[in-house]
Amino acid sequence: MFKATIFVTLKESVLDPQGVAVKNSLHSLGLENVHEVRIGKRLEVFLDQVDRKQAEAQVQMMCEKLLANPVMENYRYELEEVS
Amino acid sequence: MFKATIFVTLKESVLDPQGVAVKNSLHSLGLENVHEVRIGKRLEVFLDQVDRKQAEAQVQMMCEKLLANPVMENYRYELEEVS
Repeated sequence: MFKATIFVTLKESVLDPQGVAVKNSLHSLGLENVHEVRIGKRLEVFLDQVDRKQAEAQVQMMCEKLLANPVMENYRYELEEVS
Repeated sequence: MFKATIFVTLKESVLDPQGVAVKNSLHSLGLENVHEVRIGKRLEVFLDQVDRKQAEAQVQMMCEKLLANPVMENYRYELEEVS
């Protein structure tokens, strides 16, 4: 089995309203020195019955078709074999 | 300035309905061998006017008070000085 750890983050140029909301909440907690907050996703996907090459291809396909919006988001991933 | 990269993940024992939904979507894309999907958050928080010790304390406080639900979630973070 393979475990893919996938990170999906907003592109630098894209406004992050969720990040702005969290920043404002942190300011109200007294953390006025919080300069910026950017929020992304971290996914763990476990893949059965594949070799590394197939797993690699599947991860790219799932990121491009479902997990990451190519217009606004970037993705990167780490792939490891697990028992 | 310090950059904290914070990972918030569901505890192992907690059901992940979002993860189940993504798994089902991946199955419908033909990726029947997807065994499990777990979804978490990755936050980048930029902190001004602090030294490392203060930054460390602030990150723990924001995680415990706002960013991670102690009942259902775990958090870990990396801290680096940025220009």
